[in-house]
Amino acid sequence: MSDLVRFGVSLEQPLLERFDDLIRERQYTNRSEALRDLIRRELVQREWREGRDVAGAITLIYDHHKKDVLAKVVDTQHDFQQVIISTQHIHLDHHNCLEIIAARGKAEEVHKLADALKSIKGVRHGTLSMSSTGKEIE
Amino acid sequence: MSDLVRFGVSLEQPLLERFDDLIRERQYTNRSEALRDLIRRELVQREWREGRDVAGAITLIYDHHKKDVLAKVVDTQHDFQQVIISTQHIHLDHHNCLEIIAARGKAEEVHKLADALKSIKGVRHGTLSMSSTGKEIE
Amino acid sequence: MSDLVRFGVSLEQPLLERFDDLIRERQYTNRSEALRDLIRRELVQREWREGRDVAGAITLIYDHHKKDVLAKVVDTQHDFQQVIISTQHIHLDHHNCLEIIAARGKAEEVHKLADALKSIKGVRHGTLSMSSTGKEIE
Amino acid sequence: MSDLVRFGVSLEQPLLERFDDLIRERQYTNRSEALRDLIRRELVQREWREGRDVAGAITLIYDHHKKDVLAKVVDTQHDFQQVIISTQHIHLDHHNCLEIIAARGKAEEVHKLADALKSIKGVRHGTLSMSSTGKEIE
Repeated sequence: MSDLVRFGVSLEQPLLERFDDLIRERQYTNRSEALRDLIRRELVQREWREGRDVAGAITLIYDHHKKDVLAKVVDTQHDFQQVIISTQHIHLDHHNCLEIIAARGKAEEVHKLADALKSIKGVRHGTLSMSSTGKEIE
Repeated sequence: MSDLVRFGVSLEQPLLERFDDLIRERQYTNRSEALRDLIRRELVQREWREGRDVAGAITLIYDHHKKDVLAKVVDTQHDFQQVIISTQHIHLDHHNCLEIIAARGKAEEVHKLADALKSIKGVRHGTLSMSSTGKEIE
Repeated sequence: MSDLVRFGVSLEQPLLERFDDLIRERQYTNRSEALRDLIRRELVQREWREGRDVAGAITLIYDHHKKDVLAKVVDTQHDFQQVIISTQHIHLDHHNCLEIIAARGKAEEVHKLADALKSIKGVRHGTLSMSSTGKEIE
Repeated sequence: MSDLVRFGVSLEQPLLERFDDLIRERQYTNRSEALRDLIRRELVQREWREGRDVAGAITLIYDHHKKDVLAKVVDTQHDFQQVIISTQHIHLDHHNCLEIIAARGKAEEVHKLADALKSIKGVRHGTLSMSSTGKEIE
């Protein structure tokens, strides 16, 4: 576990009061924890921008009754198996599936996988959550 | 399966050429498929903005060695079990876990769950992917 | 001018080092200044989400040769004159104009103005910068 | 003015109905105009991602009473005068100024200018609107 370093921060009184409101609203235990989160979010955005090793989640909504959509979703995942860790599949209703793919690798590869999956005919919606391997935000 | 409706669209020649480039780049099978995707993305954003029934994925990165973090992540999920469908847990390395929670419910509840999880001390990063139940983007 | 309040923050050593990199990269004078910026950004997002009094800038790109576009851009601005402060107009080339509208008012009204301008036939691109009246981020 | 090309698009009936709702809500004159907007937005994002020649607007909120802030905002603008077209300055209240800078140049330079301005002590908030020179979205 990493050593903690303590340092002083100066904030204008009204700004601090509004920040404390926000901390309560979002249920952070203290100011340090809230500030850590803001900092880590910036760092994770930089990891993706600079094309580092990242982790993320891709969500897909598709109708499994649509011709070939299942086969194509699986085929595409096999083409990118080096960046896919695992997959979670949820039957939202009789038609709609939510599939969530945990991915890890170079930012560019993960983007390519997300684009390839989203472009499949029958995939109605796709998102890419840009998360982190955790190594650079310890 | 829904009936298809066909209608005409007019685009300026150079705009259409650049759009066709984009379609090739993102590997869409045809213009209709690419346009459908752009439209559905707008509709899904509206579902979330208007507080409808939505589906989504929450990613968390945390160090499972950190005191109490695991217990708190599980406790919080139990508090919100009505909006959680299932959970995928990945061991990224000796310290870092990636946990992906599939959620479904009112947009506001899913936001609250994401905020509650992200604010846990020891959770280093969190994202919320705003997806859809699929019903309004058929 | 507001009183400054000083308080202590604890960060993990490697996280602090990466944050210091980011501070240098973005040219902040010190950690407090960088943290203030992260906090204010959150507060401004909340102002817009909660529909408060906000300020912002709307950019438009349009071809002033296109039929009626100029008249419609001006008419729409008159319909919303209570939220428009001033306008800056730039001739980017023989065809393209960049118009930047400084707006202030209820978040909802400013969104409506931006939507109305973006939907004008001949307006090729529009953005809305969500800024602040400055009152809640002192 | 560019030639218009007409082509057919197929959409599922319920998707088209919801798209038509959206078109009415956002006040577009017809489907082509709404689709053009969605396409151009994608193209503008790509211009920025690929580091092309872009145009944009930077907003700043600052308290002009704060020591040196005015001088630094002006100095920084002079350092980047090759990418600045013009500036609009609004007195929001006794303390707060809204300054909107119209910029044009390589995406990277415009980003650097925005970062340099946002990092000035006394600048409370800054945004960068990513717009276009209009050339690639005709």
